Amino acid sequence: MSPYRASAAFTREWEHFRFAVEDGVATVTLDRPEKLNALTFDSYADLRDLIAELPHRGDAKVLVLRGQGRGFCSGGDVEEIIGELRALDTAGLLEFTRMTGAVVKALRECPLPVIAAVNGVAAGAGSVLALAADFRLLARQAKFAFLFTRVGLAGADMGSAYLLPRIVGLGRATELLVLGDSVDAERAERIGLATKVTDDLDAETAALARRLADGPAAAYSATKVLLTREQDMDLGSAIELEAITQALLMRTADHAEFYAAWSAGRKPHWSGR
Amino acid sequence: MSPYRASAAFTREWEHFRFAVEDGVATVTLDRPEKLNALTFDSYADLRDLIAELPHRGDAKVLVLRGQGRGFCSGGDVEEIIGELRALDTAGLLEFTRMTGAVVKALRECPLPVIAAVNGVAAGAGSVLALAADFRLLARQAKFAFLFTRVGLAGADMGSAYLLPRIVGLGRATELLVLGDSVDAERAERIGLATKVTDDLDAETAALARRLADGPAAAYSATKVLLTREQDMDLGSAIELEAITQALLMRTADHAEFYAAWSAGRKPHWSGR
Amino acid sequence: MSPYRASAAFTREWEHFRFAVEDGVATVTLDRPEKLNALTFDSYADLRDLIAELPHRGDAKVLVLRGQGRGFCSGGDVEEIIGELRALDTAGLLEFTRMTGAVVKALRECPLPVIAAVNGVAAGAGSVLALAADFRLLARQAKFAFLFTRVGLAGADMGSAYLLPRIVGLGRATELLVLGDSVDAERAERIGLATKVTDDLDAETAALARRLADGPAAAYSATKVLLTREQDMDLGSAIELEAITQALLMRTADHAEFYAAWSAGRKPHWSGR
Repeated sequence: MSPYRASAAFTREWEHFRFAVEDGVATVTLDRPEKLNALTFDSYADLRDLIAELPHRGDAKVLVLRGQGRGFCSGGDVEEIIGELRALDTAGLLEFTRMTGAVVKALRECPLPVIAAVNGVAAGAGSVLALAADFRLLARQAKFAFLFTRVGLAGADMGSAYLLPRIVGLGRATELLVLGDSVDAERAERIGLATKVTDDLDAETAALARRLADGPAAAYSATKVLLTREQDMDLGSAIELEAITQALLMRTADHAEFYAAWSAGRKPHWSGR
Repeated sequence: MSPYRASAAFTREWEHFRFAVEDGVATVTLDRPEKLNALTFDSYADLRDLIAELPHRGDAKVLVLRGQGRGFCSGGDVEEIIGELRALDTAGLLEFTRMTGAVVKALRECPLPVIAAVNGVAAGAGSVLALAADFRLLARQAKFAFLFTRVGLAGADMGSAYLLPRIVGLGRATELLVLGDSVDAERAERIGLATKVTDDLDAETAALARRLADGPAAAYSATKVLLTREQDMDLGSAIELEAITQALLMRTADHAEFYAAWSAGRKPHWSGR
Repeated sequence: MSPYRASAAFTREWEHFRFAVEDGVATVTLDRPEKLNALTFDSYADLRDLIAELPHRGDAKVLVLRGQGRGFCSGGDVEEIIGELRALDTAGLLEFTRMTGAVVKALRECPLPVIAAVNGVAAGAGSVLALAADFRLLARQAKFAFLFTRVGLAGADMGSAYLLPRIVGLGRATELLVLGDSVDAERAERIGLATKVTDDLDAETAALARRLADGPAAAYSATKVLLTREQDMDLGSAIELEAITQALLMRTADHAEFYAAWSAGRKPHWSGR
């Protein structure tokens, strides 16, 4: 647990998805399979709050996002979100869109690596949740659909017009976000949108999560945080940030452990500190 | 027509290319086939002015750039531009290079989606015009050649050293801009420089233009404008811009139409408002 | 030689790698083949200083980085660097990490094009040296390994978390820098990390170096410098920078030579001025 907790309590129960932490691996399972795990106002808010809290708990070294059933996440529920939005005033709409963006910002700024285990369709907001993860493991039948324009909205949603060009290039991102057509797993891998396509998503996800949870956590975390930050930084500043960060990391127990293990001809045992 | 026209008249006739607007689709056809549609001082200036005017006309929802004959655009005419530049003083050269850059800036900032229908060679300035488009549809025989260094000039021209790395990555962009070698259609597709390679460019272009002209124009436009802007924005600012934009779009007739159509089990009819 | 040398002398001898300039081509050969050309404190410092000095010498138009023997560069020597770092205090660590970053900054800001001839493994700092080059030519057996996290350090080192996402996209860069797994030549080419994979690395390198040394050097140099700078610049500023640069290049002897050669129907002879 973080030493810097003052009055705020951890959330006792996450009501709008399943959540578990096991042996360093935190898992969020979106669990409305009959709706392809469509998001609701409440599940957005729970995602925002959980991701903010997670690094403070101290029991998780990696976060896995997954969907129950056939889909990963079909995005905002048409009835429970789009229907309800019709009744909101301008300030209310902005509160909603800022909340959805806050989920993506939290995922990118989260110091833990995040794996999206994309078992089926990732559509709309669901596709942006996957974009905001660090690793996208895809089942063979998985697909992405940035279908915002198909509901009359901007393809730029929750940071998609920032993230997607930086992942697949501006040309492909323009095509995908303007048109909202589906991208199957094979194409996703070819253009760098999928980390890997696999026939056994559960096993592959478990193995990657295990590796990240058992590895040098401070090193992984610094890598992710700097990747996020250096998208917005010039060359000279980035190199300086890396110099300072790496000097700090050279003081970690894990770096010392590497050298001790190497000297003794054994494998290192990472503490994550 | 834009409600915000004051004294400035629309241009009656574009003398340096063919121009037509039909059913929401504006088409610029570079029409000097015997010169592979090489650009002249006048055709640059007409492009700059047309692209600035186009969104104000109100009759066009998408712009198609194409070339007559075998080529798309071979770039600045060697005699009519490079030859003439020999006689210019420093201020005159800068007026010219700023004008050519202004064409690319206008294309990227144009709120309409732009399709480059690349029927043949796109060389020099012609390749940068295609880069500045949102969609690059390529005929099988099309090719790109960023051949600036081959005439003793910088491969960075009209924004090419900004755009190309963001489309194909810094490594490939360095190769293409420093060396100026040709890229055929197959490679262009593989590296993300072509949106699509097709055996029937006219039909494919017409279909995409039709789709864009008939679709939710405000949504397409916001997507393009934010893609352009978020290349130059940090993560937090980008997410805020998307939140505000999406809240605005939730007030459009088209988003309401999506929900009405979905509720009624019919297809939406987009007004573009 | 640069006309702007005041008191500082050129370095007479580079003791920590082999260095030669022949007919415009400067070559650095890392020469500790028994250690796969692992770097030492001294070889880092020599690289930093040589790259700063090189453009002032006036005899080199291109820099080739290569490794002797089976490897390209295995990164910081485990004994001579990682072992020694254990004894340094915080300020000492930062002096080291800033020096390593300075090598990459110098390579990116060097006005000469740089070719990495990657004959074998490029690991850790060795892989970042290759990243900082403009061209990466790979032997079939070459491979990259950004293995920093495997020694308990951040995958963000010497600018890798800035450079790699801009070369292969943020998704692939995250995978490669967090996990530190090897990338073989075939994958490196597919994702844009290799400029080219070749069966005859020496011949391919010599040919590219020759081409760059014999070509319009000012044009190549401006292209590289602007590619570097425009990664950190917004669209409007980039276009303005290109307009001003191109107007300047239109005053070069090489651009005049292009036109004279074209008019006379002969090949241009580039002076590089």
